[in-house]
Amino acid sequence: MKLTILFGGASYEHEISIVSAITVMQKLPSFDINLIFCDEEHHFYKIDKKEMKAKSFSSAKYKKMPLLHVSRGGFELKKTFSKELIDAPVLNLIHGGDGEDGTIAALLDFYDIEFISPRKEACVFSFDKGYTKLLADSLAVKTLDYEILSQGDKPSISVPFIIKPARLGSSIGVSVVKDESEIDYALDVAFEFDERVVVEPFIADVKEYNLAGCKINEEIRFSIIEEPQKQEFLDFDKKYRDFSRSSKVNEAKLDNIMVEKLRASFSKIYGRLFEGALIRCDFFVIDDEVYLNEINPIPGSMAHYLFDDFESIIRELLNSLTKRKRVEVNYQYIHSINQAKGK
Amino acid sequence: MKLTILFGGASYEHEISIVSAITVMQKLPSFDINLIFCDEEHHFYKIDKKEMKAKSFSSAKYKKMPLLHVSRGGFELKKTFSKELIDAPVLNLIHGGDGEDGTIAALLDFYDIEFISPRKEACVFSFDKGYTKLLADSLAVKTLDYEILSQGDKPSISVPFIIKPARLGSSIGVSVVKDESEIDYALDVAFEFDERVVVEPFIADVKEYNLAGCKINEEIRFSIIEEPQKQEFLDFDKKYRDFSRSSKVNEAKLDNIMVEKLRASFSKIYGRLFEGALIRCDFFVIDDEVYLNEINPIPGSMAHYLFDDFESIIRELLNSLTKRKRVEVNYQYIHSINQAKGK
Repeated sequence: MKLTILFGGASYEHEISIVSAITVMQKLPSFDINLIFCDEEHHFYKIDKKEMKAKSFSSAKYKKMPLLHVSRGGFELKKTFSKELIDAPVLNLIHGGDGEDGTIAALLDFYDIEFISPRKEACVFSFDKGYTKLLADSLAVKTLDYEILSQGDKPSISVPFIIKPARLGSSIGVSVVKDESEIDYALDVAFEFDERVVVEPFIADVKEYNLAGCKINEEIRFSIIEEPQKQEFLDFDKKYRDFSRSSKVNEAKLDNIMVEKLRASFSKIYGRLFEGALIRCDFFVIDDEVYLNEINPIPGSMAHYLFDDFESIIRELLNSLTKRKRVEVNYQYIHSINQAKGK
Repeated sequence: MKLTILFGGASYEHEISIVSAITVMQKLPSFDINLIFCDEEHHFYKIDKKEMKAKSFSSAKYKKMPLLHVSRGGFELKKTFSKELIDAPVLNLIHGGDGEDGTIAALLDFYDIEFISPRKEACVFSFDKGYTKLLADSLAVKTLDYEILSQGDKPSISVPFIIKPARLGSSIGVSVVKDESEIDYALDVAFEFDERVVVEPFIADVKEYNLAGCKINEEIRFSIIEEPQKQEFLDFDKKYRDFSRSSKVNEAKLDNIMVEKLRASFSKIYGRLFEGALIRCDFFVIDDEVYLNEINPIPGSMAHYLFDDFESIIRELLNSLTKRKRVEVNYQYIHSINQAKGK
């Protein structure tokens, strides 16, 4: 089965995307894979599989590989006397800006290229943690209380709390504030990455569970549920290593009622909004109640380690993709007006 | 001042966009205008000003005009031995899908082209009437009560009510239901255009006021407030004619307190979300309280008829546009990992 892995992007998570793509490629051995890299200037390159290692990018060696242009139905490679169209469906693996903010989804949609990715509406709600709260509220999925601050605002809740830039993933710019003396610095850090910042109470030793899934033929296919390794939160370095992980994880020990609660919350969030995407939702459980912490609309290395048969999931998801309904333009009104005018 | 008017699109409002573009071009006589047409296949054409009339499109004559490709910084016209880049900032005048759903904004952003238009986040909240409600709620702007229906659902509120497809403008698929016998037909009509439908109480003789504006250098510049012509609602035919209107309107007779209330609601909605756009908000006033009815993120013919000096507004808005902050990729993590590995 053919698949194009699209990675890179003009994003703070550019490097994470490279690592993620290297991992996912290895986890799909039976696929016929094209690799397309988007550099920070938004140029696309066709990457030779043999050169698919971090150094090809950090050394700018990729710039010697063939340049591609987005075109109707795929990515076009111009040769001296001909053109080649890479028209395989795309797996959008650009984490952070471009990939998770809806830009790439809109671009692929506009050019009629099939793709696995959250669509732009889903991206807008998951990329911005403030909008994620609105979405969850509207679907009756609980989240922690929160405040949204703009530059100059101070949190009104008391320590300990966690401060996050509204629109970044991979824990970039995130701080746990345990003492009031740390507030200003933590705010400065977060405001480096966004003009809006989310503040939430920090709950020590809160139970965390991660669940991934995607809708295939109207049915959600769930991954196993993971209880992530216990540490306050993953900082960028740890997350970076985490994105390249290749081993399976152990399933969390949960009773059926809790498994169903977590799945029900996942299903509400996924809804129709995330169709076409494989996402991971990170939940808290407090007093047996499920709270949505975060939606990862393009999880690191596609959360392959949570699925028993990752290749089958991706294959079936690809087969179930539906194209955007095309609008037919028939100039009915212009014709009728011209007729009325005798033209 | 240079400006590219982009119009057309694969949208139910394709024809309205053509009419809108013809009108706006006439209302900006001192501008040096390029006209770029996006057809239903998503091909771009450079339209000769002399051919800027409805018939050039309905007769497919536009297909003989030069084809353009989006490229970094502008639209590229390939000539036999050279290339021309149309790099003027773009006024996104594509109404409905493509233009108002965030696709065009994402495309222009990706290719580093400056533009007047709601950005993709703003589009997602204004294109879908259900999401508009979430946005308004979160900003403490009142809206009418509502229900969102999926295929098979029935309204639980009693007649009279108004049924609208969640994601279309220009009154397409909208019905006022006054008798229960009309419900099924009205739902069928609305579901032709969207899989989700919004139902709201219909309030006869409700006071309606339209207010347009845009933020220029951190300050919102308001239009006059119009009380639109009294009819139940504008259907597509009437709206079509409305989009080509060229005369100024009379200002609504309102006391200062109400003007300030309407402006305050507009400002809350506009916020930072709509920066870069000139929008029109349509409000109801019931018992002296302001309710948001609809956000028109790309109003018909840019609501030029509501501004005393439309050319100055567009000129100043163009001058105040800020480019998207670029992310710098420095491969710091890959370098440090390679160093640790001794590479």
